[in-house]
Amino acid sequence: MATYTAPVDDLRFVLHELHDATGQFAELPGFEEASVDLIDAVLGEAGKVCENVLFATNQSGDEIGAQWNDGAVTLPAGYAEAYKALTEGGWTSLSCDPEFGGQGLPETMKFVVEEMVVSSNMALSLIPGLTHGAYRALNGFANDELKQRYLPKMVSGQWAGTMCLTEAHCGTDLGLMRSRAESQADGSYKISGQKIFITGGDQDLTENIVHLVLAKIPGGPNGIKGVSLFLVPKFLPDTNNDPGDYNNTNCGSIEKKMGIKGAPACVMNFDGSTGWLVGEENRGVRAMFAMMNHERLWVGMQGLAVAETAYQNAAAYAKERLQGRSPSGPVNTDGPADPIIVHPDVRRMLMTARAQIEGARALYIGVSLSIDKADRHPNTAVREAADKRVALMTPIIKAFLSDMGHESAVNCQQVLGGHGYIREWGMEQYVRDVRIAQIYEGTNGVQAMDLVGRKLPMDGGQVMRDYLAELRSFADAQRDSSNMTEFVAPLEAAVDTLEQSFEWLLDAGAKDPAAVGAAATDFLKLMGLTSIAHMWAGMAAVSLDKLDGDNTGFYARKITLARYFMQRLLPQTVSLAAAVRSGPELLMALDADAF
Amino acid sequence: MATYTAPVDDLRFVLHELHDATGQFAELPGFEEASVDLIDAVLGEAGKVCENVLFATNQSGDEIGAQWNDGAVTLPAGYAEAYKALTEGGWTSLSCDPEFGGQGLPETMKFVVEEMVVSSNMALSLIPGLTHGAYRALNGFANDELKQRYLPKMVSGQWAGTMCLTEAHCGTDLGLMRSRAESQADGSYKISGQKIFITGGDQDLTENIVHLVLAKIPGGPNGIKGVSLFLVPKFLPDTNNDPGDYNNTNCGSIEKKMGIKGAPACVMNFDGSTGWLVGEENRGVRAMFAMMNHERLWVGMQGLAVAETAYQNAAAYAKERLQGRSPSGPVNTDGPADPIIVHPDVRRMLMTARAQIEGARALYIGVSLSIDKADRHPNTAVREAADKRVALMTPIIKAFLSDMGHESAVNCQQVLGGHGYIREWGMEQYVRDVRIAQIYEGTNGVQAMDLVGRKLPMDGGQVMRDYLAELRSFADAQRDSSNMTEFVAPLEAAVDTLEQSFEWLLDAGAKDPAAVGAAATDFLKLMGLTSIAHMWAGMAAVSLDKLDGDNTGFYARKITLARYFMQRLLPQTVSLAAAVRSGPELLMALDADAF
Repeated sequence: MATYTAPVDDLRFVLHELHDATGQFAELPGFEEASVDLIDAVLGEAGKVCENVLFATNQSGDEIGAQWNDGAVTLPAGYAEAYKALTEGGWTSLSCDPEFGGQGLPETMKFVVEEMVVSSNMALSLIPGLTHGAYRALNGFANDELKQRYLPKMVSGQWAGTMCLTEAHCGTDLGLMRSRAESQADGSYKISGQKIFITGGDQDLTENIVHLVLAKIPGGPNGIKGVSLFLVPKFLPDTNNDPGDYNNTNCGSIEKKMGIKGAPACVMNFDGSTGWLVGEENRGVRAMFAMMNHERLWVGMQGLAVAETAYQNAAAYAKERLQGRSPSGPVNTDGPADPIIVHPDVRRMLMTARAQIEGARALYIGVSLSIDKADRHPNTAVREAADKRVALMTPIIKAFLSDMGHESAVNCQQVLGGHGYIREWGMEQYVRDVRIAQIYEGTNGVQAMDLVGRKLPMDGGQVMRDYLAELRSFADAQRDSSNMTEFVAPLEAAVDTLEQSFEWLLDAGAKDPAAVGAAATDFLKLMGLTSIAHMWAGMAAVSLDKLDGDNTGFYARKITLARYFMQRLLPQTVSLAAAVRSGPELLMALDADAF
Repeated sequence: MATYTAPVDDLRFVLHELHDATGQFAELPGFEEASVDLIDAVLGEAGKVCENVLFATNQSGDEIGAQWNDGAVTLPAGYAEAYKALTEGGWTSLSCDPEFGGQGLPETMKFVVEEMVVSSNMALSLIPGLTHGAYRALNGFANDELKQRYLPKMVSGQWAGTMCLTEAHCGTDLGLMRSRAESQADGSYKISGQKIFITGGDQDLTENIVHLVLAKIPGGPNGIKGVSLFLVPKFLPDTNNDPGDYNNTNCGSIEKKMGIKGAPACVMNFDGSTGWLVGEENRGVRAMFAMMNHERLWVGMQGLAVAETAYQNAAAYAKERLQGRSPSGPVNTDGPADPIIVHPDVRRMLMTARAQIEGARALYIGVSLSIDKADRHPNTAVREAADKRVALMTPIIKAFLSDMGHESAVNCQQVLGGHGYIREWGMEQYVRDVRIAQIYEGTNGVQAMDLVGRKLPMDGGQVMRDYLAELRSFADAQRDSSNMTEFVAPLEAAVDTLEQSFEWLLDAGAKDPAAVGAAATDFLKLMGLTSIAHMWAGMAAVSLDKLDGDNTGFYARKITLARYFMQRLLPQTVSLAAAVRSGPELLMALDADAF
């Protein structure tokens, strides 16, 4: 029987001890009330809902899957009750504006609660997760009338939101889009076209669905500069703002997928559906991308969230399953064999997952704190710097964390041997579910291109240089602490490698545009590893201070994992740097026909 | 629509040009007739059956899956016809003894044909694959009466074979087994017990099923030394050697699995079933392991075989899918966008898969040639050396090739973006199917332990040292060829690293048994990469000789891929060596409760 326990202690450690979240919130107007006690209460209560209500629907939801019948989508049994527990408990509106019924807490609080929601049921989590993305886009770009009409119901969870970007012939390249929006005399538009892969395009959890649809207004510029964003509800709100006339948003079918089977990926056919412009004409991609950083942080977090559940179940199995004997002599002398946790290679898989998950958690929470700073800090320069830091780190979070999440889930599945391959045990579902995080919201290859092609060159490379300087400044501050040397020395070596690769890349990219793409993924991994090494060095520093003679507890464990990351995972930076520098020639040498 | 084209040209290159297979066969009595023409005819004809008959059942077989109803298992529609095409065409009996109706060709020919069978339908391939394993065990250990009674029908494919090892509480640790065999007055035994994960334990392709069952004879030694091997047919052969009385081999259920859904993983309940001893009492594990090298080579090959199909479909997609523009300017100027094959990062995924697949193919065929040598060479010393080489390389083939196969399949799935996650496109099936190769026939962690714990120490390390010497001798022989330097130099660096790690490990393992397990997986990967670098250097040497001004064809492509492997994949050896040397202390530092 699979289990999930919310990692409240670790979230508290990262928020309070590593990042001093409340100290950061204190500088942000409106967040003064986000105290340690409040945060802990939120984590504890939300964790219970995830453990007790959501997780119970995870495996059955995968077995049943979302069902399409005659245009209507039914979600698996139990989803409606679980969704109700989430929304009525206020767990999906933590960071929403109190003007619309939200609780006005930091985005960071939304992210950490969402991590637990994803861990306990990733498929279900997508519905409120996408609704929040739509909320952010509307709150940022829609006019007041639209906001007043739609946001309260979205914040309460009565109505859900979707993002409708992809068409069958264009995913990454949105400029090829064919969906059309015809302007009407009343200021509205008639939207027509087909979108695919629309998560939650139809479902039976909410009484209405608010689609955010990218489409072209005829006569506008070609390509991506002619794309606008529209709000298109499933049912047009009536005078009481209740769902009224059906708006021809037809779900033509749902995809059979590898995983997240409880979340319907819909083919949506808009046929003269009424929509309203969100933001300016032909600036739809800007509005969509404004929430993209947020969405991509969310997706990266999904990687570690699913890996967390996979880890917990693999560790439980490893402590129970009796096979063979410890290489150092029997430990379970009364039993027929020892639990497999005695084997170094089983520990390797578990500790690799643990070092990845906890490092990733520290990193995403750090970036989400920067989102709050970018949203709220009174000082413009601080806001702008935070915004650029978020922009720089977004592709790292999205791609590196989802890659690590997948790797961790595969490793944890491996711990169970043949049982890991059998559906009953649940492990293979985590692998299938988490795989999508490497693909959607821009594939990880697209993230890598975003990092090296757009983010590194920001301000002539200064944003990246500021980040490197911060890593060096952390290392400098630890120089007098001799028991930090084992963490700081490998971190500094990695920062050197990262900086050299960065400067090489700026130079090579200026000479040959293919050099950027050729290095992209390996550079992203190199930077991801270095960023996480920074987090682990920080966690080691905090833990060394708290250790106080306890060599077996929480802080001792953190220090061991920090060492493990430095010694066994961080050395990958060396081979990644070699791949970065191998350049584009080999990749471009073959004709397309030779593939 | 997914496609598969048998890689006949590449198989011919590896067999004839890289390994001089016919030259090797010429030294093996009985294989004189395995000429280039014969080999090519086999490859061509078998390839057509795989392309035209087997592959058509691959995706539908996954959708339908094996079905259990009231104790009987039905395989997906089309499997029976495909199995018939395989067996009646003689494609499953290539290497079997002519005395029992086989064609007496080298095992190598069986492996290369089997690669194509796996590529076109991995789930179905398991039935004849396991039958061949059972054939080898019986041919090696059963008495003449059992051989005469069972082998002709197994060779013809009328009867299938299984391997019944695992019980619910013991997979890796067979000494914990509970199945019992009671000796009968007529020399037979009554077998009782439950086995799980029995692939093909029941199916409707063959008229009888021959189970090879491990069980304990009461009163024998404890643990693995008291395990014997028995032949237990589903139906007892009657006087005409046709299937007669049912032998109480009951299939209690089949597992719901992540993949290979067309292959039933059965719970088998033996209830006083009649069986006959194969080999000696209490020596069952020896008989089972005698075929294990062969089985593990087969499983490792499955990794690249499935990856081959994944690659072909990813490459086809990348050449067709239009998204964005080449970084060096548009190439498809009349179209709305360029095919995604123009992007260096897409090429990176495809070339990584290609370098892994072709390198892996060269390696497994090399080892399968050693199997033939170990079986047949007239010189005892050559036979023994070949046998030890196979033993050394078996865990590399099983684990490294299945790991690379999974990684390649995941990379190829990634090329398709969202479409890779949708079942319709077939890519996610390859990922799900190939995943099992990392798990069954001994998990890859068990393989790594086998390598470092049993294989490296063989003859005091001499078997490994002989292998290292062979790698160095290859490098020495190329030293005067300046255009080989770019391949030989990185190979030699990898061999240095491998040798240092090996000597370090022998030394560290002598001091602390946990050091062996702690290094096992990373050492295996280090050795796997080096072995494949050897193959690529060899393929580069052959190709440089044949190049003859053609810079775009088959040989030029091989050279580019060899460079790619050396520059972008082989550098991983450096970080793996660092992980090997990090030692066991960190892995063993935490109490089990800290996991």
